Amino acid sequence: MAETNPPPEAAVVELLGLLAYAELVAFDRMAADARLAPDLQRRAVLSEMAAREIDNYCRLADRLRELGTDPEEAMAPFVQPLQEYHAKTEPNDWLEALTKAYIGEGLADDFYREIAGFLQSPDRELVLDVRHESRFEEFSATEIRDAIAADPKVANRLSMWARRLSGEALSQAQRVAMAHADLVALVMTADGEQAVNLFKKLTSAHSARMTSVGLNN
Amino acid sequence: MAETNPPPEAAVVELLGLLAYAELVAFDRMAADARLAPDLQRRAVLSEMAAREIDNYCRLADRLRELGTDPEEAMAPFVQPLQEYHAKTEPNDWLEALTKAYIGEGLADDFYREIAGFLQSPDRELVLDVRHESRFEEFSATEIRDAIAADPKVANRLSMWARRLSGEALSQAQRVAMAHADLVALVMTADGEQAVNLFKKLTSAHSARMTSVGLNN
Repeated sequence: MAETNPPPEAAVVELLGLLAYAELVAFDRMAADARLAPDLQRRAVLSEMAAREIDNYCRLADRLRELGTDPEEAMAPFVQPLQEYHAKTEPNDWLEALTKAYIGEGLADDFYREIAGFLQSPDRELVLDVRHESRFEEFSATEIRDAIAADPKVANRLSMWARRLSGEALSQAQRVAMAHADLVALVMTADGEQAVNLFKKLTSAHSARMTSVGLNN
Repeated sequence: MAETNPPPEAAVVELLGLLAYAELVAFDRMAADARLAPDLQRRAVLSEMAAREIDNYCRLADRLRELGTDPEEAMAPFVQPLQEYHAKTEPNDWLEALTKAYIGEGLADDFYREIAGFLQSPDRELVLDVRHESRFEEFSATEIRDAIAADPKVANRLSMWARRLSGEALSQAQRVAMAHADLVALVMTADGEQAVNLFKKLTSAHSARMTSVGLNN
Protein backbone atom coordinates (compact mmCIF):
# COMPACT_ATOMS: atom_id res chain seq x y z
CA MET A 1 0.00 0.00 0.00
CA ALA A 2 1.10 3.55 -0.68
CA GLU A 3 0.56 4.42 2.97
CA THR A 4 3.10 1.98 4.27
CA ASN A 5 5.72 2.48 1.55
CA PRO A 6 5.89 6.16 0.74
CA PRO A 7 6.62 6.78 -2.93
CA PRO A 8 10.16 8.01 -3.63
CA GLU A 9 10.34 11.79 -3.81
CA ALA A 10 11.78 11.65 -7.33
CA ALA A 11 8.59 10.00 -8.55
CA VAL A 12 6.41 12.56 -6.83
CA VAL A 13 8.41 15.40 -8.37
CA GLU A 14 8.04 13.79 -11.80
CA LEU A 15 4.32 13.40 -11.32
CA LEU A 16 3.83 16.98 -10.14
CA GLY A 17 6.00 18.22 -13.04
CA LEU A 18 3.83 16.28 -15.48
CA LEU A 19 0.61 17.60 -13.98
CA ALA A 20 1.94 21.18 -13.78
CA TYR A 21 2.91 21.24 -17.43
CA ALA A 22 -0.35 19.55 -18.42
CA GLU A 23 -2.23 22.39 -16.70
CA LEU A 24 -0.07 25.10 -18.25
CA VAL A 25 -0.46 23.79 -21.78
CA ALA A 26 -4.16 23.03 -21.28
CA PHE A 27 -4.61 26.67 -20.31
CA ASP A 28 -2.87 27.79 -23.46
CA ARG A 29 -4.85 25.52 -25.77
CA MET A 30 -8.19 26.07 -24.12
CA ALA A 31 -7.73 29.84 -24.17
CA ALA A 32 -7.06 29.61 -27.91
CA ASP A 33 -9.98 27.21 -28.46
CA ALA A 34 -12.32 29.68 -26.76
CA ARG A 35 -12.10 31.74 -29.96
CA LEU A 36 -14.09 29.01 -31.68
CA ALA A 37 -17.12 29.74 -29.51
CA PRO A 38 -20.24 30.81 -31.41
CA ASP A 39 -20.98 33.62 -28.93
CA LEU A 40 -19.34 35.61 -26.16
CA GLN A 41 -21.08 33.79 -23.35
CA ARG A 42 -19.85 30.39 -24.46
CA ARG A 43 -16.45 31.83 -25.14
CA ALA A 44 -16.37 33.11 -21.58
CA VAL A 45 -17.15 29.66 -20.17
CA LEU A 46 -14.27 27.99 -22.01
CA SER A 47 -12.02 30.91 -21.03
CA GLU A 48 -13.02 30.37 -17.44
CA MET A 49 -12.21 26.66 -17.72
CA ALA A 50 -8.79 27.71 -19.01
CA ALA A 51 -8.30 30.12 -16.13
CA ARG A 52 -8.90 27.35 -13.60
CA GLU A 53 -6.07 25.36 -15.20
CA ILE A 54 -3.69 28.18 -14.39
CA ASP A 55 -4.86 28.31 -10.80
CA ASN A 56 -4.06 24.63 -10.59
CA TYR A 57 -0.73 25.14 -12.28
CA CYS A 58 0.18 27.72 -9.63
CA ARG A 59 -0.61 25.31 -6.81
CA LEU A 60 1.42 22.50 -8.36
CA ALA A 61 4.36 24.83 -9.06
CA ASP A 62 4.26 26.12 -5.47
CA ARG A 63 4.40 22.56 -4.19
CA LEU A 64 7.35 21.75 -6.45
CA ARG A 65 9.22 24.79 -5.07
CA GLU A 66 8.39 23.61 -1.56
CA LEU A 67 10.03 20.30 -2.45
CA GLY A 68 13.13 22.23 -3.50
CA THR A 69 12.56 21.74 -7.24
CA ASP A 70 12.45 24.35 -9.95
CA PRO A 71 9.05 23.86 -11.65
CA GLU A 72 10.60 24.64 -15.02
CA GLU A 73 13.04 21.76 -14.63
CA ALA A 74 10.38 19.38 -13.39
CA MET A 75 8.15 20.22 -16.35
CA ALA A 76 10.83 20.08 -19.04
CA PRO A 77 10.67 16.31 -19.78
CA PHE A 78 6.93 16.55 -20.46
CA VAL A 79 6.90 19.51 -22.81
CA GLN A 80 7.35 17.53 -26.01
CA PRO A 81 4.80 14.73 -25.50
CA LEU A 82 2.13 17.14 -24.29
CA GLN A 83 2.80 19.67 -27.04
CA GLU A 84 2.56 16.84 -29.51
CA TYR A 85 -0.74 15.65 -28.12
CA HIS A 86 -2.18 19.13 -28.53
CA ALA A 87 -0.63 19.72 -31.94
CA LYS A 88 -2.24 16.51 -33.18
CA THR A 89 -5.63 17.29 -31.69
CA GLU A 90 -6.26 20.86 -32.69
CA PRO A 91 -10.03 21.34 -32.81
CA ASN A 92 -11.55 22.70 -36.00
CA ASP A 93 -14.74 24.02 -34.49
CA TRP A 94 -16.56 24.70 -31.26
CA LEU A 95 -17.95 21.18 -30.86
CA GLU A 96 -14.56 19.59 -31.37
CA ALA A 97 -13.10 22.03 -28.83
CA LEU A 98 -15.78 21.16 -26.29
CA THR A 99 -15.47 17.44 -26.91
CA LYS A 100 -11.74 17.77 -26.37
CA ALA A 101 -12.29 19.60 -23.09
CA TYR A 102 -14.93 17.07 -22.01
CA ILE A 103 -12.88 13.98 -22.86
CA GLY A 104 -9.53 15.41 -21.81
CA GLU A 105 -10.64 16.83 -18.49
CA GLY A 106 -12.58 13.67 -17.71
CA LEU A 107 -9.56 11.45 -18.38
CA ALA A 108 -7.32 13.80 -16.40
CA ASP A 109 -9.67 13.84 -13.42
CA ASP A 110 -9.95 10.05 -13.39
CA PHE A 111 -6.18 9.76 -13.56
CA TYR A 112 -5.73 12.30 -10.74
CA ARG A 113 -8.22 10.48 -8.55
CA GLU A 114 -6.53 7.11 -9.12
CA ILE A 115 -2.97 8.34 -8.81
CA ALA A 116 -3.79 10.23 -5.60
CA GLY A 117 -4.30 6.85 -3.96
CA PHE A 118 -0.60 6.15 -4.42
CA LEU A 119 0.50 9.42 -2.81
CA GLN A 120 0.81 10.66 0.74
CA SER A 121 -0.31 13.94 2.31
CA PRO A 122 -0.13 16.73 1.29
CA ASP A 123 0.39 15.62 -2.33
CA ARG A 124 -2.59 13.31 -2.22
CA GLU A 125 -4.93 16.17 -1.26
CA LEU A 126 -3.31 18.53 -3.73
CA VAL A 127 -3.80 16.15 -6.64
CA LEU A 128 -7.41 15.46 -5.62
CA ASP A 129 -7.98 19.16 -5.32
CA VAL A 130 -6.76 20.23 -8.75
CA ARG A 131 -9.49 18.24 -10.47
CA HIS A 132 -12.01 20.16 -12.53
CA GLU A 133 -15.27 21.57 -11.30
CA SER A 134 -18.19 19.43 -12.34
CA ARG A 135 -20.12 22.43 -13.68
CA PHE A 136 -17.67 22.58 -16.58
CA GLU A 137 -18.20 18.92 -17.39
CA GLU A 138 -21.95 19.49 -17.27
CA PHE A 139 -21.65 22.48 -19.55
CA SER A 140 -19.66 20.55 -22.16
CA ALA A 141 -21.89 17.49 -21.90
CA THR A 142 -25.01 19.57 -22.40
CA GLU A 143 -23.57 21.35 -25.41
CA ILE A 144 -22.60 18.04 -27.02
CA ARG A 145 -25.97 16.40 -26.29
CA ASP A 146 -27.86 19.42 -27.63
CA ALA A 147 -25.80 19.45 -30.81
CA ILE A 148 -26.50 15.74 -31.40
CA ALA A 149 -30.19 16.23 -30.68
CA ALA A 150 -30.31 19.03 -33.25
CA ASP A 151 -28.41 17.02 -35.86
CA PRO A 152 -27.86 13.29 -35.20
CA LYS A 153 -25.07 13.15 -37.83
CA VAL A 154 -22.94 15.14 -35.41
CA ALA A 155 -22.64 12.04 -33.21
CA ASN A 156 -20.60 10.17 -35.79
CA ARG A 157 -18.24 12.98 -36.46
CA LEU A 158 -17.65 13.69 -32.78
CA SER A 159 -17.29 9.98 -31.97
CA MET A 160 -14.48 9.73 -34.49
CA TRP A 161 -12.92 12.85 -33.08
CA ALA A 162 -13.15 11.50 -29.52
CA ARG A 163 -11.49 8.26 -30.58
CA ARG A 164 -8.68 10.25 -32.09
CA LEU A 165 -8.33 12.21 -28.84
CA SER A 166 -8.14 9.11 -26.66
CA GLY A 167 -5.82 7.39 -29.15
CA GLU A 168 -3.39 10.31 -29.15
CA ALA A 169 -3.61 10.63 -25.37
CA LEU A 170 -2.81 6.95 -25.00
CA SER A 171 0.12 7.04 -27.37
CA GLN A 172 1.65 10.07 -25.62
CA ALA A 173 1.01 8.45 -22.23
CA GLN A 174 2.90 5.36 -23.36
CA ARG A 175 5.75 7.52 -24.51
CA VAL A 176 5.86 9.28 -21.14
CA ALA A 177 5.69 5.97 -19.30
CA MET A 178 8.56 4.48 -21.28
CA ALA A 179 10.81 7.44 -20.51
CA HIS A 180 9.93 7.73 -16.82
CA ALA A 181 10.46 4.54 -14.91
CA ASP A 182 10.10 6.31 -11.54
CA LEU A 183 6.69 7.52 -12.50
CA VAL A 184 5.58 4.09 -13.61
CA ALA A 185 6.97 2.59 -10.41
CA LEU A 186 4.44 4.71 -8.52
CA VAL A 187 1.60 2.52 -9.75
CA MET A 188 3.51 -0.67 -10.44
CA THR A 189 3.61 -3.69 -8.19
CA ALA A 190 5.74 -6.77 -8.83
CA ASP A 191 2.92 -8.53 -10.68
CA GLY A 192 1.95 -5.40 -12.63
CA GLU A 193 -1.62 -5.81 -11.46
CA GLN A 194 -2.06 -2.26 -10.18
CA ALA A 195 -1.01 -0.77 -13.49
CA VAL A 196 -3.41 -3.01 -15.38
CA ASN A 197 -6.22 -2.08 -12.99
CA LEU A 198 -5.49 1.61 -13.42
CA PHE A 199 -5.65 1.25 -17.17
CA LYS A 200 -8.91 -0.71 -16.98
CA LYS A 201 -10.52 1.85 -14.71
CA LEU A 202 -9.51 4.74 -16.91
CA THR A 203 -10.76 3.15 -20.10
CA SER A 204 -14.07 2.05 -18.65
CA ALA A 205 -14.74 5.51 -17.15
CA HIS A 206 -13.84 7.01 -20.52
CA SER A 207 -16.32 4.71 -22.29
CA ALA A 208 -19.05 5.63 -19.83
CA ARG A 209 -18.34 9.31 -20.43
CA MET A 210 -18.62 8.85 -24.19
CA THR A 211 -21.89 6.97 -23.90
CA SER A 212 -23.40 9.48 -21.53
CA VAL A 213 -23.28 12.24 -24.16
CA GLY A 214 -24.31 10.02 -27.05
CA LEU A 215 -20.90 9.20 -28.55
CA ASN A 216 -19.83 5.71 -29.64
CA ASN A 217 -16.63 4.08 -28.57
CA MET B 1 -21.61 64.86 -7.24
CA ALA B 2 -22.18 61.25 -8.18
CA GLU B 3 -23.54 60.54 -4.69
CA THR B 4 -26.39 63.01 -4.94
CA ASN B 5 -27.30 62.37 -8.57
CA PRO B 6 -27.08 58.64 -9.19
CA PRO B 7 -25.89 57.86 -12.71
CA PRO B 8 -28.62 56.58 -15.03
CA GLU B 9 -28.74 52.81 -15.13
CA ALA B 10 -28.24 52.79 -18.90
CA ALA B 11 -24.84 54.42 -18.44
CA VAL B 12 -23.83 51.94 -15.76
CA VAL B 13 -24.83 49.03 -17.97
CA GLU B 14 -22.80 50.50 -20.82
CA LEU B 15 -19.80 50.94 -18.57
CA LEU B 16 -20.02 47.41 -17.17
CA GLY B 17 -20.46 46.03 -20.70
CA LEU B 18 -17.34 47.89 -21.82
CA LEU B 19 -15.32 46.66 -18.85
CA ALA B 20 -16.60 43.09 -19.21
CA TYR B 21 -15.62 42.86 -22.84
CA ALA B 22 -12.30 44.55 -22.14
CA GLU B 23 -11.55 41.80 -19.62
CA LEU B 24 -12.70 39.01 -21.91
CA VAL B 25 -10.58 40.18 -24.82
CA ALA B 26 -7.61 40.99 -22.56
CA PHE B 27 -7.74 37.39 -21.37
CA ASP B 28 -7.71 36.13 -24.92
CA ARG B 29 -4.82 38.32 -26.03
CA MET B 30 -2.73 37.88 -22.92
CA ALA B 31 -3.16 34.11 -23.04
CA ALA B 32 -1.87 34.18 -26.62
CA ASP B 33 0.96 36.59 -25.75
CA ALA B 34 2.12 34.22 -23.00
CA ARG B 35 3.48 32.03 -25.80
CA LEU B 36 6.11 34.69 -26.42
CA ALA B 37 7.65 34.09 -22.99
CA PRO B 38 11.28 32.96 -23.03
CA ASP B 39 10.66 30.28 -20.42
CA LEU B 40 7.83 28.39 -18.75
CA GLN B 41 7.96 30.33 -15.51
CA ARG B 42 7.48 33.69 -17.23
CA ARG B 43 4.85 32.17 -19.46
CA ALA B 44 3.00 31.03 -16.36
CA VAL B 45 3.01 34.55 -14.89
CA LEU B 46 1.46 36.10 -17.98
CA SER B 47 -1.01 33.20 -18.14
CA GLU B 48 -1.93 33.91 -14.54
CA MET B 49 -2.47 37.58 -15.35
CA ALA B 50 -4.78 36.45 -18.14
CA ALA B 51 -6.66 34.15 -15.79
CA ARG B 52 -7.37 37.03 -13.41
CA GLU B 53 -9.02 38.92 -16.28
CA ILE B 54 -11.52 36.11 -16.66
CA ASP B 55 -12.29 36.14 -12.96
CA ASN B 56 -13.04 39.83 -13.32
CA TYR B 57 -15.11 39.20 -16.42
CA CYS B 58 -17.24 36.73 -14.48
CA ARG B 59 -17.94 39.25 -11.73
CA LEU B 60 -18.88 41.97 -14.20
CA ALA B 61 -21.11 39.61 -16.19
CA ASP B 62 -22.82 38.46 -12.97
CA ARG B 63 -23.55 42.07 -12.08
CA LEU B 64 -24.96 42.75 -15.54
CA ARG B 65 -27.30 39.77 -15.16
CA GLU B 66 -28.31 41.09 -11.75
CA LEU B 67 -29.27 44.35 -13.47
CA GLY B 68 -31.43 42.33 -15.86
CA THR B 69 -29.07 42.70 -18.80
CA ASP B 70 -27.65 39.98 -21.01
CA PRO B 71 -23.85 40.42 -20.80
CA GLU B 72 -23.53 39.50 -24.47
CA GLU B 73 -25.82 42.38 -25.45
CA ALA B 74 -24.10 44.82 -23.14
CA MET B 75 -20.71 43.90 -24.57
CA ALA B 76 -21.67 43.90 -28.25
CA PRO B 77 -21.13 47.63 -28.95
CA PHE B 78 -17.55 47.40 -27.67
CA VAL B 79 -16.38 44.36 -29.56
CA GLN B 80 -15.18 46.20 -32.64
CA PRO B 81 -13.18 49.03 -31.04
CA LEU B 82 -11.49 46.70 -28.56
CA GLN B 83 -10.73 44.06 -31.16
CA GLU B 84 -9.27 46.79 -33.31
CA TYR B 85 -7.08 48.07 -30.50
CA HIS B 86 -5.67 44.59 -30.00
CA ALA B 87 -5.31 43.84 -33.69
CA LYS B 88 -3.26 47.01 -34.12
CA THR B 89 -1.08 46.33 -31.11
CA GLU B 90 -0.09 42.73 -31.51
CA PRO B 91 3.24 42.27 -29.72
CA ASN B 92 6.14 40.80 -31.67
CA ASP B 93 8.12 39.56 -28.71
CA TRP B 94 8.08 39.04 -25.00
CA LEU B 95 9.13 42.58 -24.08
CA GLU B 96 6.47 44.10 -26.28
CA ALA B 97 3.90 41.78 -24.72
CA LEU B 98 4.97 42.77 -21.21
CA THR B 99 5.05 46.46 -22.05
CA LYS B 100 1.55 46.12 -23.43
CA ALA B 101 0.38 44.42 -20.24
CA TYR B 102 2.16 47.01 -18.09
CA ILE B 103 0.85 50.05 -19.98
CA GLY B 104 -2.60 48.62 -20.68
CA GLU B 105 -3.32 47.34 -17.19
CA GLY B 106 -1.98 50.55 -15.68
CA LEU B 107 -4.24 52.71 -17.85
CA ALA B 108 -7.20 50.43 -17.16
CA ASP B 109 -6.64 50.53 -13.40
CA ASP B 110 -6.37 54.33 -13.38
CA PHE B 111 -9.54 54.56 -15.42
CA TYR B 112 -11.35 52.13 -13.12
CA ARG B 113 -10.28 54.07 -10.03
CA GLU B 114 -11.41 57.38 -11.50
CA ILE B 115 -14.68 56.15 -12.96
CA ALA B 116 -15.59 54.40 -9.70
CA GLY B 117 -15.91 57.86 -8.16
CA PHE B 118 -18.89 58.50 -10.42
CA LEU B 119 -20.69 55.28 -9.45
CA GLN B 120 -22.72 54.18 -6.49
CA SER B 121 -22.59 50.98 -4.45
CA PRO B 122 -22.26 48.15 -5.30
CA ASP B 123 -20.90 49.11 -8.73
CA ARG B 124 -18.34 51.46 -7.25
CA GLU B 125 -16.82 48.66 -5.14
CA LEU B 126 -17.03 46.17 -7.99
CA VAL B 127 -15.13 48.45 -10.36
CA LEU B 128 -12.51 49.22 -7.71
CA ASP B 129 -12.20 45.53 -7.03
CA VAL B 130 -11.57 44.32 -10.55
CA ARG B 131 -8.33 46.26 -10.77
CA HIS B 132 -5.14 44.29 -11.21
CA GLU B 133 -2.95 42.95 -8.46
CA SER B 134 0.13 45.09 -7.98
CA ARG B 135 2.42 42.05 -8.08
CA PHE B 136 1.75 41.75 -11.80
CA GLU B 137 2.66 45.38 -12.37
CA GLU B 138 5.84 44.86 -10.39
CA PHE B 139 6.69 41.77 -12.40
CA SER B 140 6.28 43.58 -15.72
CA ALA B 141 8.12 46.68 -14.50
CA THR B 142 11.06 44.60 -13.30
CA GLU B 143 11.29 42.69 -16.57
CA ILE B 144 11.29 45.93 -18.57
CA ARG B 145 13.88 47.61 -16.32
CA ASP B 146 16.14 44.57 -16.43
CA ALA B 147 15.93 44.38 -20.20
CA ILE B 148 16.86 48.06 -20.52
CA ALA B 149 19.71 47.64 -18.04
CA ALA B 150 21.04 44.74 -20.09
CA ASP B 151 20.72 46.64 -23.38
CA PRO B 152 19.97 50.39 -23.22
CA LYS B 153 18.87 50.40 -26.88
CA VAL B 154 15.79 48.48 -25.79
CA ALA B 155 14.48 51.67 -24.13
CA ASN B 156 14.02 53.43 -27.47
CA ARG B 157 12.28 50.56 -29.12
CA LEU B 158 9.91 49.99 -26.20
CA SER B 159 9.24 53.73 -25.82
CA MET B 160 8.07 53.85 -29.42
CA TRP B 161 5.98 50.77 -28.85
CA ALA B 162 4.41 52.25 -25.71
CA ARG B 163 3.55 55.45 -27.57
CA ARG B 164 1.85 53.39 -30.20
CA LEU B 165 -0.10 51.55 -27.50
CA SER B 166 -1.32 54.72 -25.82
CA GLY B 167 -2.06 56.33 -29.18
CA GLU B 168 -4.19 53.38 -30.28
CA ALA B 169 -5.90 53.22 -26.90
CA LEU B 170 -6.73 56.90 -27.11
CA SER B 171 -8.09 56.68 -30.62
CA GLN B 172 -10.33 53.72 -29.75
CA ALA B 173 -11.43 55.47 -26.55
CA GLN B 174 -12.48 58.50 -28.59
CA ARG B 175 -14.40 56.27 -30.92
CA VAL B 176 -16.20 54.64 -28.00
CA ALA B 177 -16.91 58.03 -26.44
CA MET B 178 -18.40 59.42 -29.64
CA ALA B 179 -20.76 56.48 -29.99
CA HIS B 180 -21.85 56.34 -26.34
CA ALA B 181 -23.21 59.61 -25.08
CA ASP B 182 -24.61 57.97 -21.92
CA LEU B 183 -21.20 56.74 -20.99
CA VAL B 184 -19.64 60.15 -21.53
CA ALA B 185 -22.42 61.76 -19.52
CA LEU B 186 -21.20 59.73 -16.55
CA VAL B 187 -18.11 61.90 -16.27
CA MET B 188 -19.37 65.04 -17.95
CA THR B 189 -20.53 68.13 -16.14
CA ALA B 190 -22.02 71.19 -17.85
CA ASP B 191 -18.62 72.87 -18.13
CA GLY B 192 -16.87 69.68 -19.23
CA GLU B 193 -14.35 70.15 -16.44
CA GLN B 194 -14.64 66.65 -14.99
CA ALA B 195 -13.93 65.03 -18.32
CA VAL B 196 -10.89 67.23 -18.84
CA ASN B 197 -9.64 66.42 -15.35
CA LEU B 198 -10.11 62.72 -15.94
CA PHE B 199 -8.11 62.92 -19.14
CA LYS B 200 -5.34 64.91 -17.42
CA LYS B 201 -5.11 62.48 -14.54
CA LEU B 202 -4.93 59.47 -16.85
CA THR B 203 -2.23 60.96 -19.06
CA SER B 204 -0.08 62.13 -16.18
CA ALA B 205 -0.28 58.76 -14.42
CA HIS B 206 0.59 57.10 -17.74
CA SER B 207 3.66 59.35 -18.12
CA ALA B 208 4.78 58.56 -14.60
CA ARG B 209 4.42 54.86 -15.33
CA MET B 210 6.54 55.17 -18.46
CA THR B 211 9.27 57.10 -16.65
CA SER B 212 9.34 54.68 -13.75
CA VAL B 213 10.51 51.82 -15.99
CA GLY B 214 12.88 53.95 -18.07
CA LEU B 215 10.67 54.65 -21.09
CA ASN B 216 10.37 58.11 -22.70
CA ASN B 217 7.06 59.76 -23.41
